[in-house]
Amino acid sequence: MTQEFATAQDAEDAFYDAIDERDAEQLRAVWEDSDDIACLLPMQPMLHGATVHDAFRPLTDGEIRVEIQVRHIRWLEAGEIAFHWVEELVKTPGNPPQPAIYALNIYRRGESGWHLLIHQNSPSPAPPGATPPPGMVPSR
Amino acid sequence: MTQEFATAQDAEDAFYDAIDERDAEQLRAVWEDSDDIACLLPMQPMLHGATVHDAFRPLTDGEIRVEIQVRHIRWLEAGEIAFHWVEELVKTPGNPPQPAIYALNIYRRGESGWHLLIHQNSPSPAPPGATPPPGMVPSR
Repeated sequence: MTQEFATAQDAEDAFYDAIDERDAEQLRAVWEDSDDIACLLPMQPMLHGATVHDAFRPLTDGEIRVEIQVRHIRWLEAGEIAFHWVEELVKTPGNPPQPAIYALNIYRRGESGWHLLIHQNSPSPAPPGATPPPGMVPSR
Repeated sequence: MTQEFATAQDAEDAFYDAIDERDAEQLRAVWEDSDDIACLLPMQPMLHGATVHDAFRPLTDGEIRVEIQVRHIRWLEAGEIAFHWVEELVKTPGNPPQPAIYALNIYRRGESGWHLLIHQNSPSPAPPGATPPPGMVPSR
């Protein structure tokens, strides 16, 4: 299925909707159809190319049911590339709420509209009072 | 100080050299001189614009002495934007070695060459046997 997204935001909405609806085909259609795609999920090895799709399979194939609330933080467009930083609040039934995590979603505009090129998660700040790991820049 | 870097890799080398040499002026010169710059250090709030420079001050002003070994993982160029994924092994004297972390360094080519636009760290995979946080996609 090839889908054209008119804006990076359209692609982003489709990305999180596809996870919410556990729609593997739709999720795949959000990604650019190329070996350039790359993904860094929390505490996971870096993936690129077709292996990216494998990483999301547990979210659509029923192994894990997640609900992701997304808060937009910042956007930046640079020609054919769009950068979207969001905060993801990931909830799984039966588990205590997790701290929100950051995601940087990077979209590229091609001949068939905007598609997701890179998805990269990063931990958000530790709770107040927590000790940062040694060598990390201390909280401001 | 305005410095022109002929390639994204030149800018990247200068970035890690400046941290190694604790050279705040050089470190600042690696970043694009704009409000578009953004940075996500491990467990830190997202920073953008001039506040990015503040976050690196402890690394150059003597509060923290770090040695960072960098391993290149993957590059991608898209017009005026270059994406470099690296693994950073951060060592601080007197502390046990930390697990390597991923960094995505994104460079933009402008009228005065390539400069760092975005620096974003992400945790690398948990050690074998460790339990991923609930809701996270399990290790492949």
